[in-house]
Amino acid sequence: MSRFASSFTFKRRVAFADTDAMGVVHHMNYLRYFEEARVAWLRELRLDHEHYPKAPLCLAVLETVCRHRAPARFEDELLVHMQVRRERLKIVIQYAIVRADQPDDAIALGQTKLVGVDKELRPVRMPDAFAAQLEKEKWTETWL
Amino acid sequence: MSRFASSFTFKRRVAFADTDAMGVVHHMNYLRYFEEARVAWLRELRLDHEHYPKAPLCLAVLETVCRHRAPARFEDELLVHMQVRRERLKIVIQYAIVRADQPDDAIALGQTKLVGVDKELRPVRMPDAFAAQLEKEKWTETWL
Amino acid sequence: MSRFASSFTFKRRVAFADTDAMGVVHHMNYLRYFEEARVAWLRELRLDHEHYPKAPLCLAVLETVCRHRAPARFEDELLVHMQVRRERLKIVIQYAIVRADQPDDAIALGQTKLVGVDKELRPVRMPDAFAAQLEKEKWTETWL
Amino acid sequence: MSRFASSFTFKRRVAFADTDAMGVVHHMNYLRYFEEARVAWLRELRLDHEHYPKAPLCLAVLETVCRHRAPARFEDELLVHMQVRRERLKIVIQYAIVRADQPDDAIALGQTKLVGVDKELRPVRMPDAFAAQLEKEKWTETWL
Repeated sequence: MSRFASSFTFKRRVAFADTDAMGVVHHMNYLRYFEEARVAWLRELRLDHEHYPKAPLCLAVLETVCRHRAPARFEDELLVHMQVRRERLKIVIQYAIVRADQPDDAIALGQTKLVGVDKELRPVRMPDAFAAQLEKEKWTETWL
Repeated sequence: MSRFASSFTFKRRVAFADTDAMGVVHHMNYLRYFEEARVAWLRELRLDHEHYPKAPLCLAVLETVCRHRAPARFEDELLVHMQVRRERLKIVIQYAIVRADQPDDAIALGQTKLVGVDKELRPVRMPDAFAAQLEKEKWTETWL
Repeated sequence: MSRFASSFTFKRRVAFADTDAMGVVHHMNYLRYFEEARVAWLRELRLDHEHYPKAPLCLAVLETVCRHRAPARFEDELLVHMQVRRERLKIVIQYAIVRADQPDDAIALGQTKLVGVDKELRPVRMPDAFAAQLEKEKWTETWL
Repeated sequence: MSRFASSFTFKRRVAFADTDAMGVVHHMNYLRYFEEARVAWLRELRLDHEHYPKAPLCLAVLETVCRHRAPARFEDELLVHMQVRRERLKIVIQYAIVRADQPDDAIALGQTKLVGVDKELRPVRMPDAFAAQLEKEKWTETWL
């Protein structure tokens, strides 16, 4: 078992389009991987019907942080571990990305803060189903 | 003068984020350069107030073609030459991309077909200002 | 069974990062989906050890075509059907993208032509394992 | 004059490809804008011949932070203000992005930490020309 005790893990191969001229994943794409992981987590929890496009709520990104420790390369199989907690109106998510063949060494650690917004991008109260789920999430330790 | 007699030329440096692990511009990004060129052309002609976001009309892409003859690399200065003609409801645009330091050698030749659509993505009649401009455009020769 | 008799089908959900302000997948990302599909096909056939990064051979894109018939949206589940044939040094691949819930209606049809190149981007002979596989591929009908 | 006293300001229009289904610039693309700004700054200072592709040095991204205060939309003209300082082997850059028509309101504030690396991605000493320039940079106040 990985040292990243995670409420959800998303598996993702590095696509060729994600690489840059240094031969590694361009740093922008870690934000893509974080987003794919949290969308998959919401779908897994059947919370996808609470947000866009199935409901008017959108999850706007307020803040992103990413710290890079090692590169990822084309065809690497990555695991994106996630832990989630609530901060009033905000959802705070931390991410630890490891290569599947070296599951204890994070190549990147990140955090995003999100807030639910309506179509005019005004913050709104979190749907009850979201709030209830966030109560249940475990936040083991701070990864960054 | 370049052999690409063009109604509009857009200048663009290759960004690092546009490259891939072969050390060259990833082929997806040529579609990005074509789009930037046609948006700049519409702005130059003051037709930008006829389309999204200043007007409801969007220009949906029906077809793209791109033929690659040579690579482009980080920091290359590119010129995107354009020629435009109308085909009933459609706008056909051809593109010839050259490096500024080798202006007669196309590194990529492309074509896009576009159609004006409303917010529900239904094709609509071209605004008169568009139609009038397309009458004036010169289509010198077919580039691909 | 789908009307697209395919040698390989790749499944892919639309990511939020792939959408644009029209609320649909931005046309650039179809080239991303085509690339992901052919990489997955090569891996499935265990031909991934014949190309970069496991071998020096890269598959350079010579030409792309994409025709759009209908949009795709965030969270749509897409199937990318592929058929492949050899044209001397080139590999020609056609793609038909459908939504999993409407498997007979292509939302996009595309084609790419690729050639094997070395690190200096010079065309090279196809590895025997590639050539042998391409002999076996069925090309049922031309999709575009 | 803007309240962001900046050593360098980069101008950039929002491209359509940068938007997402919320109708605003997708958060990933702020990292693209930061990168374009620092590449333009290095070129302006004629330091571009000290790094890839004109020299073997690459500037690897160690950390990114971005805080979002307001959205940007298609065709917005953005100004990316930068301030730069050295931290031993690292280059720390802060960014304040404003809309050209509202120059005192940051829509995003960010920071990147970079380190010079060789082709094997090992950290290397900063070239003298870089170090000399970083001595001259003014760091007015911390933006985030």
